[in-house]
Amino acid sequence: MQFSLGQIAAILGGTVEGDPNQLVYRLDKIQEGKSGGISFLANEKYEPYLYETNSTAVIISEGFTPNKPFKTTLIRVKDAYLGFTTLLEAYAQLSKTSLVGVEQPSYMHESSTMGVNGYRGALSYIGKNCQLEDDVKVHGQAYIGDRVKIGKGSIIHPGAKICSDTVIGNYCEVHPGAVIGSDGFGFAPQADGTYKTIPQIGNVILEDHVSVGANATIDCATMGSTIIKKGAKIDNLVQIAHNVIIGENTVIAAQTGISGSTEIGKNCVIAGKAGIAGHIKVADNTTIGGNTGISKSIKTSGQTLFGFIAMDLKEFLKSYAVFKNLDQLQQRVQQLEKKG
Amino acid sequence: MQFSLGQIAAILGGTVEGDPNQLVYRLDKIQEGKSGGISFLANEKYEPYLYETNSTAVIISEGFTPNKPFKTTLIRVKDAYLGFTTLLEAYAQLSKTSLVGVEQPSYMHESSTMGVNGYRGALSYIGKNCQLEDDVKVHGQAYIGDRVKIGKGSIIHPGAKICSDTVIGNYCEVHPGAVIGSDGFGFAPQADGTYKTIPQIGNVILEDHVSVGANATIDCATMGSTIIKKGAKIDNLVQIAHNVIIGENTVIAAQTGISGSTEIGKNCVIAGKAGIAGHIKVADNTTIGGNTGISKSIKTSGQTLFGFIAMDLKEFLKSYAVFKNLDQLQQRVQQLEKKG
Amino acid sequence: MQFSLGQIAAILGGTVEGDPNQLVYRLDKIQEGKSGGISFLANEKYEPYLYETNSTAVIISEGFTPNKPFKTTLIRVKDAYLGFTTLLEAYAQLSKTSLVGVEQPSYMHESSTMGVNGYRGALSYIGKNCQLEDDVKVHGQAYIGDRVKIGKGSIIHPGAKICSDTVIGNYCEVHPGAVIGSDGFGFAPQADGTYKTIPQIGNVILEDHVSVGANATIDCATMGSTIIKKGAKIDNLVQIAHNVIIGENTVIAAQTGISGSTEIGKNCVIAGKAGIAGHIKVADNTTIGGNTGISKSIKTSGQTLFGFIAMDLKEFLKSYAVFKNLDQLQQRVQQLEKKG
Repeated sequence: MQFSLGQIAAILGGTVEGDPNQLVYRLDKIQEGKSGGISFLANEKYEPYLYETNSTAVIISEGFTPNKPFKTTLIRVKDAYLGFTTLLEAYAQLSKTSLVGVEQPSYMHESSTMGVNGYRGALSYIGKNCQLEDDVKVHGQAYIGDRVKIGKGSIIHPGAKICSDTVIGNYCEVHPGAVIGSDGFGFAPQADGTYKTIPQIGNVILEDHVSVGANATIDCATMGSTIIKKGAKIDNLVQIAHNVIIGENTVIAAQTGISGSTEIGKNCVIAGKAGIAGHIKVADNTTIGGNTGISKSIKTSGQTLFGFIAMDLKEFLKSYAVFKNLDQLQQRVQQLEKKG
Repeated sequence: MQFSLGQIAAILGGTVEGDPNQLVYRLDKIQEGKSGGISFLANEKYEPYLYETNSTAVIISEGFTPNKPFKTTLIRVKDAYLGFTTLLEAYAQLSKTSLVGVEQPSYMHESSTMGVNGYRGALSYIGKNCQLEDDVKVHGQAYIGDRVKIGKGSIIHPGAKICSDTVIGNYCEVHPGAVIGSDGFGFAPQADGTYKTIPQIGNVILEDHVSVGANATIDCATMGSTIIKKGAKIDNLVQIAHNVIIGENTVIAAQTGISGSTEIGKNCVIAGKAGIAGHIKVADNTTIGGNTGISKSIKTSGQTLFGFIAMDLKEFLKSYAVFKNLDQLQQRVQQLEKKG
Repeated sequence: MQFSLGQIAAILGGTVEGDPNQLVYRLDKIQEGKSGGISFLANEKYEPYLYETNSTAVIISEGFTPNKPFKTTLIRVKDAYLGFTTLLEAYAQLSKTSLVGVEQPSYMHESSTMGVNGYRGALSYIGKNCQLEDDVKVHGQAYIGDRVKIGKGSIIHPGAKICSDTVIGNYCEVHPGAVIGSDGFGFAPQADGTYKTIPQIGNVILEDHVSVGANATIDCATMGSTIIKKGAKIDNLVQIAHNVIIGENTVIAAQTGISGSTEIGKNCVIAGKAGIAGHIKVADNTTIGGNTGISKSIKTSGQTLFGFIAMDLKEFLKSYAVFKNLDQLQQRVQQLEKKG
């Protein structure tokens, strides 16, 4: 997308000091500004960059008086910081929603339907009997299996794979390469040491405003549904196994794994690389540290847990402080034994 | 897929009490049953759901007498549970094998061949000189490089990537987004601190009945083959490095990583997020806990190992119990020192 | 690719003892040699395999005298080992660079350009205003967003996804399924417990000679750039969050995760599954062990760190040795207390 400085000034209710026909297509930090970008100057600490920047334009507050020459064009607004964040959100919103229509070649089975303002990128795949509501954006190379429902305004990024029977709510984002609805890992051991595959015939439900990160995986339920509740945010490379339930507004950072049939409460914050066992429940408002292992249910809400096998964060740090000099502690015991 | 209740009753050797022309296309839990689904009732604990369910049909044992009105249609069979599991397996089998033919647009080099009953989904890619046996299903957006062989009945799910020279046995499944045969991570350090890429010209062999999870990665060998032996099951986001060998019927849960040239024995069970060093051997029938680090060869078979650096599970738990109060132990030593 | 033995002998300055028109298309270990492959014999320990191998040809040093009959054809060169490594590098180089032209169907927006000797595989996607320099290879099903720049000789492997505004230097490799430039994980907590998405409008820069592994993910910066510096090598399933900087010639093994805004120095070696917190700096030449957690900045260069919370490797091992018998240490303290 590109905009003229005149268009941007109109959006922000400001004025251009220079050529309003100049085009910009990027938002830059002022200290890294390049031609074609627009920056802002709100904190006086950054004023020296104004005189050096290669940004095509800089958003600046009405009262500012430059004291040196500069190359860039100024856009004067009431409050430069507020103007920039307005622009930032408008830009992000536009870049996600401006895509409309169908690029070819692509594939959609004749039994599937799209609402108005939809987008299907080239090389995207949409199987049978899918229902895509208004404003759904299916990017290039995204895959949608059969009987998938996708709610209004949701975005399926390039190369994301939505397997058959998945239900996606409104305003969700599934980032590139994520897999939603792959078979759960279920195998029944046989007497001869081999394993028989247990059919996985359930699905995945993402409620509204859910975000799933790049190359994350969410398996379908064995029967019933794996459910990611409203507003939950899941980072890159997270693994969510079959029949898991993730509570509302719970945030899970990268590379964490949650084993089958576990239920995570709402408003939890789980840091990166945590590992959570199967068939347990984690109470609402639990904070779980990076790399932490959760092996049994957390029943009291509001705890902050940490450690190879999770314990209270402060207790863990006290124990680990002693662990760091454990050899010395052992020597002290030896000394005492000698004396005794 | 959809079936009439009459067709299902015929498969199960049962009778329909109601309209045999009603269609179902989904298997549901009775407590979550919706129109278009078929459920079963075997455990009397679930009987109350029979009178509430929205399932189109419920499979029920011959002797059952309802004691309230209900909306659903009954299919009477000898044993409801057995009938349902029969249906479940038939359904899962059918949904995986019923796809036949070629969707367009897609790409297959003229030098490659497919057997009978094969499927190539839209936007799938098949390179040069590939041999796909009978009943192979290559889903939409799956990628098959050059000179790949795929045995009878194997399924390559959407967006899975099978790199050149890979050999896949019979009845394997490669789940969405998995990468088989990517370059091993081999770089030779140079005197100036840079690295030179070591050519990775080997391949990957999956023997029969191997399953590889969504977004898992298996690198090709530097020379020779990375081998996943018969019946091994590998979960989502697992990393298997170059020249690794995984033994028969070994099961590896999500996000585990196995470093280069390591050999894992047969019938091992490795939980999620374990990390196994390179150039070691793990004995048959080893059980490795979640997040566990294996830094040296495991020579005795049948052990259960756990811990940041693996040790016997029970010993680890004893040590960790003390660790949790390590600060107190230190204080006790201080007390003794004062007394002394 | 295939070559006649005559062609290979010409490349190596050797002579064929047999039919120079025989074709080979694979490099094999002599002990695993099959028809269509070429092997080498340099170490006399492997001589017995010469008499058994099914390789079509074996490279052998001039002075070697066989003492048994054999089936394979010999190619005599001055130094068999040197000859083979020459062939290995030539083969790897050729197999990566020999692809030229465009396979159809594929998609490239009319505003994008490719240099000479380029390759676009079938079902690849190239968005608007991209600039691909000479010798760039975009494999089948690779995805390139809008305004992406890719330098000379870089290879985008099958199904890799390069999001909009990414800048890739010369001679980089992005392996299958890797995602470069996905949205950073940024959400602002709101008073009602929900999260608001923070627009992520920056990009990713890969400098020259960078390698990114299969299914790895590198998020774009919130503003500005996430930067992977010259010669850095990143393995499969690694997560690199927004605004991270990775120093020159730093090597990061599989499944490691680096949180937002962290800066890793140059010539570091980071083993698999390490987890590095956000907003910290790691000094040059740091070695970080497998599964190690780094929670604060590492200021002294040249350290080797290990542990659940990183400490000096040797110190960790000393402490862990005591940890393994921590229960006994506690009992010894109890004994002392009883005595006292």
